Amino acid sequence: MKTLFTNAVVVTMNDCFDVFNKGYLLVEDGKISSVGPMEKCIDDFANMEVVDAEGGIMIPGFVNTHTHIGMIPFRGLGEDMKDRLNRFLFPLEKKQMTSSLAKASAKYAVAEMQLSGITTFFDMYYFEDDIAEAVSQMGERAVLAETIIENTIDSRQPYGGLMYAEKFIEKWAGKNNLITPSIAPHAPYSNTKDSLVKSKIIAEKYNVPYMIHLAEMDYEVALLREKYDVTPVEYMENIGFLSSDLVAAHCIYINERDAEILARYGVNVSHCVVANTKSGKGISPVKLMQEKGVSVGLGTDGPISGNTLDMFTVMKTVALAQKTFLHDRSAYTSREILKMATIDGARCLGIHESTGSLEPGKNADVTIVETQSINMYPMHDPYATVVYQTNAGNVQTVYVDGIKRVHNKNLCSHTVKKLRHELEDASIKFNEAASKM
Amino acid sequence: MKTLFTNAVVVTMNDCFDVFNKGYLLVEDGKISSVGPMEKCIDDFANMEVVDAEGGIMIPGFVNTHTHIGMIPFRGLGEDMKDRLNRFLFPLEKKQMTSSLAKASAKYAVAEMQLSGITTFFDMYYFEDDIAEAVSQMGERAVLAETIIENTIDSRQPYGGLMYAEKFIEKWAGKNNLITPSIAPHAPYSNTKDSLVKSKIIAEKYNVPYMIHLAEMDYEVALLREKYDVTPVEYMENIGFLSSDLVAAHCIYINERDAEILARYGVNVSHCVVANTKSGKGISPVKLMQEKGVSVGLGTDGPISGNTLDMFTVMKTVALAQKTFLHDRSAYTSREILKMATIDGARCLGIHESTGSLEPGKNADVTIVETQSINMYPMHDPYATVVYQTNAGNVQTVYVDGIKRVHNKNLCSHTVKKLRHELEDASIKFNEAASKM
Repeated sequence: MKTLFTNAVVVTMNDCFDVFNKGYLLVEDGKISSVGPMEKCIDDFANMEVVDAEGGIMIPGFVNTHTHIGMIPFRGLGEDMKDRLNRFLFPLEKKQMTSSLAKASAKYAVAEMQLSGITTFFDMYYFEDDIAEAVSQMGERAVLAETIIENTIDSRQPYGGLMYAEKFIEKWAGKNNLITPSIAPHAPYSNTKDSLVKSKIIAEKYNVPYMIHLAEMDYEVALLREKYDVTPVEYMENIGFLSSDLVAAHCIYINERDAEILARYGVNVSHCVVANTKSGKGISPVKLMQEKGVSVGLGTDGPISGNTLDMFTVMKTVALAQKTFLHDRSAYTSREILKMATIDGARCLGIHESTGSLEPGKNADVTIVETQSINMYPMHDPYATVVYQTNAGNVQTVYVDGIKRVHNKNLCSHTVKKLRHELEDASIKFNEAASKM
Repeated sequence: MKTLFTNAVVVTMNDCFDVFNKGYLLVEDGKISSVGPMEKCIDDFANMEVVDAEGGIMIPGFVNTHTHIGMIPFRGLGEDMKDRLNRFLFPLEKKQMTSSLAKASAKYAVAEMQLSGITTFFDMYYFEDDIAEAVSQMGERAVLAETIIENTIDSRQPYGGLMYAEKFIEKWAGKNNLITPSIAPHAPYSNTKDSLVKSKIIAEKYNVPYMIHLAEMDYEVALLREKYDVTPVEYMENIGFLSSDLVAAHCIYINERDAEILARYGVNVSHCVVANTKSGKGISPVKLMQEKGVSVGLGTDGPISGNTLDMFTVMKTVALAQKTFLHDRSAYTSREILKMATIDGARCLGIHESTGSLEPGKNADVTIVETQSINMYPMHDPYATVVYQTNAGNVQTVYVDGIKRVHNKNLCSHTVKKLRHELEDASIKFNEAASKM
């Protein structure tokens, strides 16, 4: 099984940042077997699918390092409301979120990610067993983490997620080559020390990545200062929670010492700029963390926080926010931004040897954006075009693990219409309750 | 000539912020004659065009209060470069920008704006006579201002734009009901006092709006402090430049006294957040100015600064930037943001009695965004959906002055392909020179 992509502006994101302005990429058995300029392309096209990119820009599929794909029904609810999480989200979620709604939402969310060129993501929600079924059906690469919190919505016991997670990890380990089961305690302020430590033990036992929301809230910072006179990162270090398998989402309230601690343990950070700025929290000191040696990837966050599950909005916002924060228009070039959205994200998830760039031997996780739409001209620099001009509607073609998932801007094996009907049907009670809040 | 829009979520942006979740809008002879819920819609559809919005969101066409439509060829050039304006843009512009290139760029840029739902804009560039021809051909509502600067590119004399502008205004005044000719001295730091005063006298003589880049640059602030011990706004007041016909673009370096001066003269401000943040300059104190009574509209700025000529990117960035700047997630609701992008922008241009909202008697400047694409579900609040979920690719239908300009996401009287070929042909020498810089 071979697929040959021709006539693409191939942006490899390899260590040398090779770009082939008129390039090809050959996929054999789901893996990239060669990539280069068109003049070195094979000329025997027998027994293969040939995809003419027609001058489109080919990039590695995006890696979305933090999201909550069960939450599409919440998108756009209670915007601009103070303390939305506690006044709005948690009560509604507790009463109205079900396994079937989470599953319908997950399928829809994966479709949205595929249509915007995301080929890998790290999810954190409830009912992850159902979500894993949904992700399997959609054919997307993912790390799926069951959330650990006292009042969990998919178990009747406090911290029932610990049992759920262990069962879930056992069930899904090795079951589907695209899916890695995982565990994610919610946050330092919402979990007991005991549940945090137990979560990490489970991740270690099964040798899987784990995730947490860290240094995100002002009240989190205040609480840990008051109780233990430490920062959130210091607290996590003190209880033995940190390791290189951890992806810490947000990390807004980070000082120099915190950044050094994160680097020392090899902790990975998911920077979710849209969520952080929309909620007025502030801008994460990404440069400080990177300078200390921390791997930083980008995340959309969930659809209630970041609204759209696309990395174009995220990349552009990272550029604008960091250049403003650092008062330097030359900070964070578009190449650096695209690096964070692809290979650095893969590094955060520990899978940079197998995805995140267009290199021989890697899985064929590939996104092509067309360059014919009005906003895509001119293209003086493909990095700048991707970061500053492109939107999700320009994504033409997406392959995940060598399988075509998006063709001519449409899903290949599903229809948006049907996925939407399923989600609408599952959302009836949820919407009734939401409209009364 | 009647057009009836049915089955739309009509977001009127009138003083009461009326929204009709299933509404209609009737256009007669280019003007809105009535708007309301579907149950009050006429049922005799004879002798009219009927446009079924199929649940799409109908909003007033956006008003883009600041752009440079001759500059599409520069888009994406020299991104992330320090002092790009002086090191890159000005030299290239001086050598390679011609009337025919400006005209081809203008047509392309207007197409991009129409396709993203912008129905009115305020331009500031050179060769405005050619640009006005282009805008006429495209059928867009615009204020077009000839730039005044010492080394002008469309005249051999220093400040030759003053003569050009006067001739241009005389030629275009009353010629086309959609086009208002105008004048725009470049900035306080790049113009002599004499040329600033003369520009204002011309605007007064012909009773047209005028524009300037104001309080945008750190070196502008430093220069005026050193020379006259004043802020940019104080300088403008001292030389008698301010009036309610002025649209001042950017206004980043504004203190409380500056905001009071702007309000006292009725000066209007064009907030160009994408350009301001991408260049690392900072975030304009919009709330301060609005609280003092200044009208603030939104601008994309030119395609070299803001990259895409769409207000969706601008609106989302305004929300994220202002919420972060004010440390308040409830600041700038999506309704307030959409207000700035429509009726407040019209107020800045002095045309709020005739456009900027969907009200009987106003010109039919109308944009419909479809709600079937993956990113458009769910819609709990149409304001939030428009500001946080929508991108330019969701714009389905656009009418300018009652004439259909975009239908099913395509231009009605032009094709992107042809406009692009024209621009490519006109750009050959420009691109050669750019590639050597």
